[in-house]
Amino acid sequence: MRIVCPKVDLLNGVNIVLKAVPAKTTMPILECIVINASNNNIKLTANDMELGIETIVKGDISEAGVIAINAKIFSEIIRKLPDNDVIIETDSNYKSTIVCEKAKFNISGKSADEFPNLPTIEKGNPLILSQFTLKELIRQTVFSISDNENNKIMTGELFEVTGDELKVVSLDGHRISIRKIKLKDQYDDIKVIVPGKTLNEISKILSGEMDDEVRVYITDKHIVYEFNNTIVLSRLIEGEYYKISQMLSNDYETKVSINKKELLSCIDRATLLVKESDKKPIILNVLDNTIELKINSSIGSMNEEIDIRKEGKEILIGFNPKFLIDALRVIDDEEIDIYLFNPKAPCFIKDKDENYIYLILPVNINASAS
Amino acid sequence: MRIVCPKVDLLNGVNIVLKAVPAKTTMPILECIVINASNNNIKLTANDMELGIETIVKGDISEAGVIAINAKIFSEIIRKLPDNDVIIETDSNYKSTIVCEKAKFNISGKSADEFPNLPTIEKGNPLILSQFTLKELIRQTVFSISDNENNKIMTGELFEVTGDELKVVSLDGHRISIRKIKLKDQYDDIKVIVPGKTLNEISKILSGEMDDEVRVYITDKHIVYEFNNTIVLSRLIEGEYYKISQMLSNDYETKVSINKKELLSCIDRATLLVKESDKKPIILNVLDNTIELKINSSIGSMNEEIDIRKEGKEILIGFNPKFLIDALRVIDDEEIDIYLFNPKAPCFIKDKDENYIYLILPVNINASAS
Repeated sequence: MRIVCPKVDLLNGVNIVLKAVPAKTTMPILECIVINASNNNIKLTANDMELGIETIVKGDISEAGVIAINAKIFSEIIRKLPDNDVIIETDSNYKSTIVCEKAKFNISGKSADEFPNLPTIEKGNPLILSQFTLKELIRQTVFSISDNENNKIMTGELFEVTGDELKVVSLDGHRISIRKIKLKDQYDDIKVIVPGKTLNEISKILSGEMDDEVRVYITDKHIVYEFNNTIVLSRLIEGEYYKISQMLSNDYETKVSINKKELLSCIDRATLLVKESDKKPIILNVLDNTIELKINSSIGSMNEEIDIRKEGKEILIGFNPKFLIDALRVIDDEEIDIYLFNPKAPCFIKDKDENYIYLILPVNINASAS
Repeated sequence: MRIVCPKVDLLNGVNIVLKAVPAKTTMPILECIVINASNNNIKLTANDMELGIETIVKGDISEAGVIAINAKIFSEIIRKLPDNDVIIETDSNYKSTIVCEKAKFNISGKSADEFPNLPTIEKGNPLILSQFTLKELIRQTVFSISDNENNKIMTGELFEVTGDELKVVSLDGHRISIRKIKLKDQYDDIKVIVPGKTLNEISKILSGEMDDEVRVYITDKHIVYEFNNTIVLSRLIEGEYYKISQMLSNDYETKVSINKKELLSCIDRATLLVKESDKKPIILNVLDNTIELKINSSIGSMNEEIDIRKEGKEILIGFNPKFLIDALRVIDDEEIDIYLFNPKAPCFIKDKDENYIYLILPVNINASAS
């Protein structure tokens, strides 16, 4: 094989497929990137068996061929080369030479024969989203998946299509995050669970531009994202997702309208006084035109008041401050509405059209506050 | 005590004295910052017994007093407060209240009676430098101190004043770094060893501006830096520094003039292939108009050529690439001169006026190259 690629394009391609190179594996071949220049284009592939990524890189092929090269070393070499054309040449023993200007690297490659190629997917009618929208959908929900691998379903997100609506849901037993968007077309019903880990990785590759498109194909076992010159394929999680409709409610006794930034800064300050392991709640005392926030810990105490608009009853309720912070960080609205029922019922942070709903379970203040 | 300070000024002061708060200590009082508002100004102090810092913060005192407050918690609280006036109030039990806008923190302070105040120093004639110059002097030498505490003297830097010249030297057994600058005045001879650790800390506080001045007072036991509203006091290391003059030499068989950036990028690329623990040398083959650089490791090999101007003999010599990188990174010249004698003698990188001299011992290639 002999190919010539501009360094910038090659590095960009390598950085994309790197997301599918496992940090640890018992199969050494998975630590490699495959460079395939056998079909009139230069294709890079990585695959950790859950997530697989292929991307086409610009360049010239003067001799077709395929090689697997250690991803870590290859990416570091490319990153540090001068900004010029890179020549990659391999011989029949998989010895590889990487030349750029006067710098020349020799490293050993491997046959790509053992490398697990990405499965071929029967492509139906794709969901079409902007890369911006998909990236936002992920950012605004993925924080509340569970990282406990014993409950596989909670480590994923529900992707549910009904007509022209896509709903994405994540939950971890203490909170639920829901985001809904309208699609341009009508679709048959789809309901699949996508691993949160692969969503995190794809989110890093998406451009975040409104004008860039991504096509999403969903089958029984896989979800495939196609965009630019890249294909990202993820396995789905098998099983039935939780029925969340029975956990949602539109009843409330108290509605609080509050400036999001003020609330977030205040809770952020308050958490100075608690260690993650402390599990000290932040206590919200909702009064007529003001909300009092308090936290007590072994280090000290903090209290602060924020102006609000309130409908309904006064209420005293406690929350894990981290859960409030996580939700507030991903909401883009300047003013938000919080719906409360009683000190033992979940609170809902949602907009009028329910494009987003964040449900957070409260903490029993009597038991845990000092 | 009751004081009011603008948040920005208070935070700035806290960040300065934080550099002297020890990460670990058996004396809990040293984990505190002392706020002293008893002498018509607001003074913050921290002291880890090797390095002590005092700084004056702008603000109003409505009730004089002194308190010691846990540095970590205090600094985090101040950092997260809104950008407005901060009121700090303490009672006779050292309970402290920190109020800013509607946010109110209560934390426990301590009596400052046990806190070790900075020793009073008899001030003689100070060395006067720009903060820029002192910061550069430190940056350009401190990387080659030893971090082996068993040899205390190597963990420090020699500060030597002769007439109107200040010379700073560091060495670790494999290399020597020397920087010389002219002072504005003539001084009596001074020769002291300043701990490298405290130089690193002071360097973080210095503004790096040419127009900002720092006054340096040196006594038998201490070095004191005064600038802006801040006093930094460091203990000196006792003992006699190495006689380095006998290690320096102006003899050479080969002189190489080379573009610094090209050489640095090349060595940086080459080190991809070696782990720190590998101790693989980079081999320099100096030819007539070119230098060949080569590295071999278990991962692969790399070679590159760089154009040079050469005087004298050809030479093949090996170095620990890290030592070359460290020196090249701190040299500001675009083109540098490297003086070589033979493959077993140290190389010198130095400018014509010897404002800087970097001596690096070679590695025996026959023994270590594969």
